[in-house]
Amino acid sequence: MLYFYTDYMEGAHPEVMRRLMETNMEHTTGYGSDPYTYNAKQLIREACGKPEAAVHFLVGGTQTNATVIDALLRQHEGVLAAETAHINVHESGAIEATGHKVLTLPEYSGKIKAEDVKRYITDFYRDDTYEHMVAPGMVYISHPTEYGTLYTLNELKELNNVCREANIPLYMDGARLGYGLAAEGTDVSIKDIADLCDVFYIGGTKVGALFGEAVVAANPQRLPHFFPLVKQHGALLAKGRLLGIQFETLFTDNLYQKMGEHAVRLAMKLKKSFTDKGYKIFIDSPTNQQFVCLPNDEIDRLSQYAGFELWGPKGKKESKVRFVTNWATTEEDVNAFIELL
Amino acid sequence: MLYFYTDYMEGAHPEVMRRLMETNMEHTTGYGSDPYTYNAKQLIREACGKPEAAVHFLVGGTQTNATVIDALLRQHEGVLAAETAHINVHESGAIEATGHKVLTLPEYSGKIKAEDVKRYITDFYRDDTYEHMVAPGMVYISHPTEYGTLYTLNELKELNNVCREANIPLYMDGARLGYGLAAEGTDVSIKDIADLCDVFYIGGTKVGALFGEAVVAANPQRLPHFFPLVKQHGALLAKGRLLGIQFETLFTDNLYQKMGEHAVRLAMKLKKSFTDKGYKIFIDSPTNQQFVCLPNDEIDRLSQYAGFELWGPKGKKESKVRFVTNWATTEEDVNAFIELL
Amino acid sequence: MLYFYTDYMEGAHPEVMRRLMETNMEHTTGYGSDPYTYNAKQLIREACGKPEAAVHFLVGGTQTNATVIDALLRQHEGVLAAETAHINVHESGAIEATGHKVLTLPEYSGKIKAEDVKRYITDFYRDDTYEHMVAPGMVYISHPTEYGTLYTLNELKELNNVCREANIPLYMDGARLGYGLAAEGTDVSIKDIADLCDVFYIGGTKVGALFGEAVVAANPQRLPHFFPLVKQHGALLAKGRLLGIQFETLFTDNLYQKMGEHAVRLAMKLKKSFTDKGYKIFIDSPTNQQFVCLPNDEIDRLSQYAGFELWGPKGKKESKVRFVTNWATTEEDVNAFIELL
Amino acid sequence: MLYFYTDYMEGAHPEVMRRLMETNMEHTTGYGSDPYTYNAKQLIREACGKPEAAVHFLVGGTQTNATVIDALLRQHEGVLAAETAHINVHESGAIEATGHKVLTLPEYSGKIKAEDVKRYITDFYRDDTYEHMVAPGMVYISHPTEYGTLYTLNELKELNNVCREANIPLYMDGARLGYGLAAEGTDVSIKDIADLCDVFYIGGTKVGALFGEAVVAANPQRLPHFFPLVKQHGALLAKGRLLGIQFETLFTDNLYQKMGEHAVRLAMKLKKSFTDKGYKIFIDSPTNQQFVCLPNDEIDRLSQYAGFELWGPKGKKESKVRFVTNWATTEEDVNAFIELL
Repeated sequence: MLYFYTDYMEGAHPEVMRRLMETNMEHTTGYGSDPYTYNAKQLIREACGKPEAAVHFLVGGTQTNATVIDALLRQHEGVLAAETAHINVHESGAIEATGHKVLTLPEYSGKIKAEDVKRYITDFYRDDTYEHMVAPGMVYISHPTEYGTLYTLNELKELNNVCREANIPLYMDGARLGYGLAAEGTDVSIKDIADLCDVFYIGGTKVGALFGEAVVAANPQRLPHFFPLVKQHGALLAKGRLLGIQFETLFTDNLYQKMGEHAVRLAMKLKKSFTDKGYKIFIDSPTNQQFVCLPNDEIDRLSQYAGFELWGPKGKKESKVRFVTNWATTEEDVNAFIELL
Repeated sequence: MLYFYTDYMEGAHPEVMRRLMETNMEHTTGYGSDPYTYNAKQLIREACGKPEAAVHFLVGGTQTNATVIDALLRQHEGVLAAETAHINVHESGAIEATGHKVLTLPEYSGKIKAEDVKRYITDFYRDDTYEHMVAPGMVYISHPTEYGTLYTLNELKELNNVCREANIPLYMDGARLGYGLAAEGTDVSIKDIADLCDVFYIGGTKVGALFGEAVVAANPQRLPHFFPLVKQHGALLAKGRLLGIQFETLFTDNLYQKMGEHAVRLAMKLKKSFTDKGYKIFIDSPTNQQFVCLPNDEIDRLSQYAGFELWGPKGKKESKVRFVTNWATTEEDVNAFIELL
Repeated sequence: MLYFYTDYMEGAHPEVMRRLMETNMEHTTGYGSDPYTYNAKQLIREACGKPEAAVHFLVGGTQTNATVIDALLRQHEGVLAAETAHINVHESGAIEATGHKVLTLPEYSGKIKAEDVKRYITDFYRDDTYEHMVAPGMVYISHPTEYGTLYTLNELKELNNVCREANIPLYMDGARLGYGLAAEGTDVSIKDIADLCDVFYIGGTKVGALFGEAVVAANPQRLPHFFPLVKQHGALLAKGRLLGIQFETLFTDNLYQKMGEHAVRLAMKLKKSFTDKGYKIFIDSPTNQQFVCLPNDEIDRLSQYAGFELWGPKGKKESKVRFVTNWATTEEDVNAFIELL
Repeated sequence: MLYFYTDYMEGAHPEVMRRLMETNMEHTTGYGSDPYTYNAKQLIREACGKPEAAVHFLVGGTQTNATVIDALLRQHEGVLAAETAHINVHESGAIEATGHKVLTLPEYSGKIKAEDVKRYITDFYRDDTYEHMVAPGMVYISHPTEYGTLYTLNELKELNNVCREANIPLYMDGARLGYGLAAEGTDVSIKDIADLCDVFYIGGTKVGALFGEAVVAANPQRLPHFFPLVKQHGALLAKGRLLGIQFETLFTDNLYQKMGEHAVRLAMKLKKSFTDKGYKIFIDSPTNQQFVCLPNDEIDRLSQYAGFELWGPKGKKESKVRFVTNWATTEEDVNAFIELL
């Protein structure tokens, strides 16, 4: 079987496992007070070019989004996000469970536009009854988006500008950040992100770790009292060093970037094989998720040999499907799949 | 250095690590839909003698408590617990963050008495204004308690009786359950717990796993719609199999019990060395946590060679300290410590 | 000045005030345990043809919506409502503050369609990942809607059917119910509503009371433990009799219906005057809110003599405006306005 | 029947009713934007000697406490209060429902001591694991307390000092403030309260209004964005002027003070009659609530003619009872009762 179903089907990158094994019987204090966590934070600060940044490690994505959003908003505020945003669609109401509304904006292949944010805020405060409505208190974006697409540096700058003007923070969900940083043609580096987003997280779960997400705020004042909030959200790992060791490994010898590049290269190879065959790419993603329309027969045939996901309901003749590569995808599997195709 | 500081200073039992390594590159579907998780659930159902039980795997203790309590209570209800209960003291308000009050009861070395629960409930409903107060909606106990003590089978039966009469669930926090099941002289088995507690969890984090807690409800109707609630609480691990593999290992070849026995045996050895020297045991714990009063000089001297925790503020001449053993504590370290003493 | 701005600009119907004065110095027990409240509940049960119904009096609309929705939903559920629903737009996030998401449906002049509800629910449970999403746990409608429109009996039956099939409750926000019941041509009676909606409220604030909303559930089992929840939501009035006296008066001698008829008759007179002049009615409302497009000059001229509300942003040449009548609107004022026009 | 049961058994002071009647058919805009509300705020600012103070009108006490506390705390913080505090005991978990823990302190006839607050905070931050616990984020006091007792000016200054040092706000629940300000021998004026408490509320419900509480913050920066929070908590009255008119009346011609004096004078008369008869006053209250031990026979006999409340469970021979006077209590009733005694 060939696996293109999701990017969290395997364990961790062998190097991560090696380090976990190697350190397994060491004794360290808990909750992130260990030297591995300290070192991992330093490596991330360095990678971001932000020596003063606050770095916090949490376990999973939904948890991270809920904790950060809860930390950034006041009670009467909501979070602006694309209709298709993970926080709006696929987190079982985790954001609302903390008391906050997700305020939706139109999406363009999963992205939002600075002008829509601006218009929302302008219209909001122009309305005489705005105090009866949920105030836009922050902006949430994902990069790559749920559709694999990426913001350009210019788009991020525009979003940053709009947020500066409105005096609200910009937050980036980087669950798949590694695949975004490694995309061909992207002009956005992790340093740019650390400059332009008040808070963002570097996804580990989908990019080589067993689990774990690293929250970064260039200005630590953005996340005051974050530790007790992490605890309150049930997001504090007792053996915090497990997160430290993993992120230390990911940010040593450029591993995070290399894994991203590997997955993206294979995704591009898959994409090319689809376009070469004349199939329609329905979202043009430069990252590790590829979205293509295939004839239903072909889907049935391929499904015998390869795992991938139907994207929405099955069509009459053809259907949308998603193929995902990751750090663990092998060139052999991709070649075998292209062969099949 | 000799380590008796906490029971979460190391990674996981080598067998757990071996299995994680062995399966690392396998491809499985996410969120606990994998065969390892399926198998782990079966093994736990078997150990509990409850073939129909609902079993859910979560990541950490505070998270598990908050999710289960939120699931069991209606909005106007609170949870009865000892004043010293972890949920009342050391979870940064995680229970209140879900909207529920912790209703405190007197504690006796960390335990509560069925008669106090009964009195609370009787007094509550006898008060004309009870609808203006938070209704006792469930009972929380920990076993071992935060002080290492254990309920007897009879005490559990009494608590169960009181809860049956009041028609409210009894929930056990088993963060250190393995050390309780293995205690000398305990007459409480995991089957008894599954019989007498509506919901309980089997702690992994402190007993041999990297992380993970297994929630068990003999009657699955007690936890309807628990999956989306787990997700909403940010407690759903994407790579659910990591929990499955770990608990599968813990419940294979009696490993969970063996680790408990190992730690308890060494704790008893420590305890004996204290009493032999004439030091006062201030809480008589039959499990892996030992509480002893030591002269301050002795504390200072021992601290050079061994890690342990001051329990409360430092006294004038002597102070209370806690020593903790776990699955990873070695006989050599214990012997070396006794030597020191 | 002529007042058509909102329906909550005056105090209460003179008969309500007379009764409040008359009883002012009487001594009664608090929190709704008084005989006026008892009697008011009986009168409402009678009007609804539901002798067993639970009736609860709360103070205001947002409070009532938040309390009822919190009572009806489980933690993982959200409430289906029109995009334009008051709970989605104008309650400062009161629903989300209780932890629940508002799941939006398309609106048709403020109404939702049973088929859209059905499709939402069907699609939801057809999605493999539905447990990662917020489950539709109830349906919210307003009648009259925020745009003055009304459901037909048949539409309510269809909504009821869909909810029965899905086993979720149907809740009606009746903030302006009096104006809906009195509309010409409506085939929906309060008895129909009590039959078809699991829970609904009879608005007092906008229909003759100083304040107050009466929550009705034909089957009291739908709202178990509602009293402490009302208290918890800060919605319990100490001097509960103030609500009892007001609703007793509203449901004596058909006053509630008469006030509705008065306001609707005058609204229809206004509407006719607009259409007679050739102005475009942009939402065809049979109730006390009227929506018309007027040339900007005319708006400016009329504004000197009459209060009414711009509905949305000002247009280039003409703009949408809303005129509202209520129980306190006088025939003289309406005539004077028609004269002006 | 003679009524000493509670202080919310009647409607409103006749002057309040007269003003409500007089203005009943006037047209004003909603939500507190009317001139009566404006004027009432000015009168309260004047009474408090704080021309810049923020003043907000809410409907009831529990609602006010929940809204203010939610506004003042950050997510990881709780509120320090006496064990017997209304927010801890009699609000159906309204504070916890907003996500915050009530942190209890010892009570002395309903009051707390500054030294206990100081010790709590000092001990809290001295604990290495304080970030795993709920941080004390504000102090709640009631004045008069639930037991009718009052803080002295010096005690308030001490509490203020402790709060200043800890940089947390001091909040006073003044549900019965009028009876406190009018107590014989009190050295605390409303100006002192406005000086020493960051936020407090002036109770209307129990002191002459139909309903209503006035929240005051000398420094309006203490309650930023309070309006949407009031709305979100369901505490915003559509016909806001009802609150404005009531408080305007209460703060005109010294009515609020006069009502307090009236009730307190009669309460003292009752108290004297008890002590003259040799009955034991078990809480020495200088305000409108009086607490006395009476023989059970006497309780039974008196209950035929007068309403008062058993305070706690019935004793064997004698029991504790509470007598309450208010603005509506008549000298005749008090005399008649003394006669009975």
